[in-house]
Amino acid sequence: MQGEFSLGDLAVRFGLALRGEPELKVSRVATLSHAGSGTLSFLANPRYRKQMETTRATAVLVGPENAAGCPVAALIDPNPYLAYARIAELLHPQAPPVAGIHPTAVVSASARIAASAGVGPLAVIEDDADIGEGVFVGPGCIVQRGALIGAGSRLMSRVNVCAGVRIGRRCILHAGAVVGADGFGFAPDAGTWVKVPQVGTVQIGDDVEIGANTTIDRGAIDDTVVENGVKLDNQIQVGHNVTIGAHTAIAGCVGISGSTTIGRRCMIGGGVGIAGHLTIADDVVVTGCSLVSASIRNPGSYSSGMPTVETRLWRRMVAHLRRLEGKER
Amino acid sequence: MQGEFSLGDLAVRFGLALRGEPELKVSRVATLSHAGSGTLSFLANPRYRKQMETTRATAVLVGPENAAGCPVAALIDPNPYLAYARIAELLHPQAPPVAGIHPTAVVSASARIAASAGVGPLAVIEDDADIGEGVFVGPGCIVQRGALIGAGSRLMSRVNVCAGVRIGRRCILHAGAVVGADGFGFAPDAGTWVKVPQVGTVQIGDDVEIGANTTIDRGAIDDTVVENGVKLDNQIQVGHNVTIGAHTAIAGCVGISGSTTIGRRCMIGGGVGIAGHLTIADDVVVTGCSLVSASIRNPGSYSSGMPTVETRLWRRMVAHLRRLEGKER
Amino acid sequence: MQGEFSLGDLAVRFGLALRGEPELKVSRVATLSHAGSGTLSFLANPRYRKQMETTRATAVLVGPENAAGCPVAALIDPNPYLAYARIAELLHPQAPPVAGIHPTAVVSASARIAASAGVGPLAVIEDDADIGEGVFVGPGCIVQRGALIGAGSRLMSRVNVCAGVRIGRRCILHAGAVVGADGFGFAPDAGTWVKVPQVGTVQIGDDVEIGANTTIDRGAIDDTVVENGVKLDNQIQVGHNVTIGAHTAIAGCVGISGSTTIGRRCMIGGGVGIAGHLTIADDVVVTGCSLVSASIRNPGSYSSGMPTVETRLWRRMVAHLRRLEGKER
Repeated sequence: MQGEFSLGDLAVRFGLALRGEPELKVSRVATLSHAGSGTLSFLANPRYRKQMETTRATAVLVGPENAAGCPVAALIDPNPYLAYARIAELLHPQAPPVAGIHPTAVVSASARIAASAGVGPLAVIEDDADIGEGVFVGPGCIVQRGALIGAGSRLMSRVNVCAGVRIGRRCILHAGAVVGADGFGFAPDAGTWVKVPQVGTVQIGDDVEIGANTTIDRGAIDDTVVENGVKLDNQIQVGHNVTIGAHTAIAGCVGISGSTTIGRRCMIGGGVGIAGHLTIADDVVVTGCSLVSASIRNPGSYSSGMPTVETRLWRRMVAHLRRLEGKER
Repeated sequence: MQGEFSLGDLAVRFGLALRGEPELKVSRVATLSHAGSGTLSFLANPRYRKQMETTRATAVLVGPENAAGCPVAALIDPNPYLAYARIAELLHPQAPPVAGIHPTAVVSASARIAASAGVGPLAVIEDDADIGEGVFVGPGCIVQRGALIGAGSRLMSRVNVCAGVRIGRRCILHAGAVVGADGFGFAPDAGTWVKVPQVGTVQIGDDVEIGANTTIDRGAIDDTVVENGVKLDNQIQVGHNVTIGAHTAIAGCVGISGSTTIGRRCMIGGGVGIAGHLTIADDVVVTGCSLVSASIRNPGSYSSGMPTVETRLWRRMVAHLRRLEGKER
Repeated sequence: MQGEFSLGDLAVRFGLALRGEPELKVSRVATLSHAGSGTLSFLANPRYRKQMETTRATAVLVGPENAAGCPVAALIDPNPYLAYARIAELLHPQAPPVAGIHPTAVVSASARIAASAGVGPLAVIEDDADIGEGVFVGPGCIVQRGALIGAGSRLMSRVNVCAGVRIGRRCILHAGAVVGADGFGFAPDAGTWVKVPQVGTVQIGDDVEIGANTTIDRGAIDDTVVENGVKLDNQIQVGHNVTIGAHTAIAGCVGISGSTTIGRRCMIGGGVGIAGHLTIADDVVVTGCSLVSASIRNPGSYSSGMPTVETRLWRRMVAHLRRLEGKER
């Protein structure tokens, strides 16, 4: 059962202006269009303004510019999405892990498991692994030899943390994530490939989130590094010896080749490919489905994703581009 | 051991014309080029017509236009690939799951498991999950708190169905699929990110197939929805609050950003990226490796995938495009 | 504990020239910039030459052209990266698997497990599977009915080898890899899809490496084939009935559609998409994020990945391309 909070209480706790009755109560969040009595909604993206006009929410979190148009009680903040995130966390708190080791988990005698940590069914904790206070190791997770999971981190389910990997505090790793598998390193030898041992590991900072089925390879010699506050969506591939700077956010299906360094506070759109051995500055935005094939030295927004047109038109555009080039040769 | 069927029997069961001996028998399917005695092959793609001329199959399923050219017995249908699909299912039937719970599975006392359901070794079924009649939960699968698996669905192996997710009837989920991990939602806060709780879930309709290592995120507030008959290939990423309309088929490695709605009977090629908050009409085809960055209002075929040319030529085309733009500024 | 080797010993074992004291000893590898006493480093990529000038490594593996510039002892080989790969393997040897079956593994009575094979905790080996000599089946791996794992192969952890799949000798499969899930085959039927049974399997040759969360589908009728020495990075999707020729290397996030044949010794860059039913010659290079939509008949390098520019400039380039096409119509 979630808690119930009055709008007055929320306004005080989160420093919000309130237009409406302070005694009104909300117990859960809802979208503008599906809200009902007792719910709190929010308006952050202007394309949903129309939905606010007919919402049945008890209250809506809005920016000052939208308070007048709100037909129900309004909690007002210049950054309504951020205020929403915090109130949603209050209304829908994450249950803390139940401390203790499930009897079906396989835990090495040499592993250190903090007293407040919870280890779920059929998890595997190998030799010398170190599981911090308040950590949750969900069902089917594997924490391999010598890996370290910092206090308060949660491995949701079926996460694989390979040997020697260090995960910081308060991280969240989603199902199917693999941290520390071998990087892709082979030396050519007369038409065949000789494997290059991958002897580095991975260092993940604090407050990092790693999406479902995302993979982060261990370093070839030095470590792969993901700094504090980085957020990685699902199905991302991070090559060996990549460094991702603090608070950078990367959307789904991005691939980052080995030894590339990405700056801080970058935002990388979905499906982007980033070549190896590059340097990307702080505060760079790359829009979806672009290919970064050279270093980016200055902050700003970069693109090369080609938007769809009708297939018939597209074929002509491609043919045209080829002809143009031909004329010039 | 598979069954053996006479061509006459197959012609009657499936309403096919037969040119050849009705007593000839087939027991398995084969490709035109690798067929032998007792096999049934088919010709659906004209590029394989040449292989039919020398096939050693006992019989070939063909369209009327190809019956005359078939050197062996011909089963004739205007849609030979569809007829093939049905006969292949008859010749190579899926074994029904063995009912019962493997002793190494970890099943909550509060979970409901139908009598005819089968739960494999080392599967985990959490509290209040509901496993329908005839369901197969394969080895290593995890069905989390309150999730529901509809009658006749099969979770092949190592599938992860997260808390509260509802899977319809007769669905097939392949290894490594993750349904219901958190969506990618963060509110910016002075150069850092605050997690937005993902309190929605996922609704999967009937007859949906979900490929290996495909991920479908739970909704931020409302649910992510995959309607009846949708077919998803491997390694697809479906963001939170996406809706995929009935009978849409999506090839591998596609990424769909949050809150986008895809229509019914669409066909999305491999590697396509689809931006967030878009609407795509019914009956839209998007060819491979395209980027859909704006809503598509009308049925039809859309493209932006650039085909390869020799690298030297490609570099000139790219340089040319940049110069052209420069001249015009 | 790793071993310690003198430079003289290494020069003799690997046929290297030595410039420096043969009694100097190294026990581990290091990058040029992070090397310390007792380490061996290497210079293969000229962009790191500057780092060599100040390295604190005990010795550096270099090509003859860089020996003079090396401030410490130099082991000299025309192919320093290859020599490095071999010496790194000597200094950091892979521990052989501990033979035996972990008591929590679930192994069918009809499975054959070689005496020298090791099966880790919570692995599942189904009926009639065949696990060769020296094989390692790591924690949480699933080897399904009738699958065969050749001698010396290693399934690192949470690998899923589906029914009937044959893996060669000395292969390495990383966490989350799925080999042999159903291909994506459906016959259209009046706006819905009928599943085409996928009755083939997968054949993997010797010395193949398969990256984390990579998926290789079983054949529709004949088998999907990956020949000897192929190296596949993470998050790759290989469709049904694809053939990948010997010693081809494929970087992360590549998608290969069904029934395509890729030649030998090809190199496919990250994020490439390859359409179905194509043939790609031997010795083809495809650079990152390209789309191969037609067969490639001749060896050489092919591209279509568009490099990023500033978003503002990119928008003008796209608009320009559309206008050009319009003028010509």
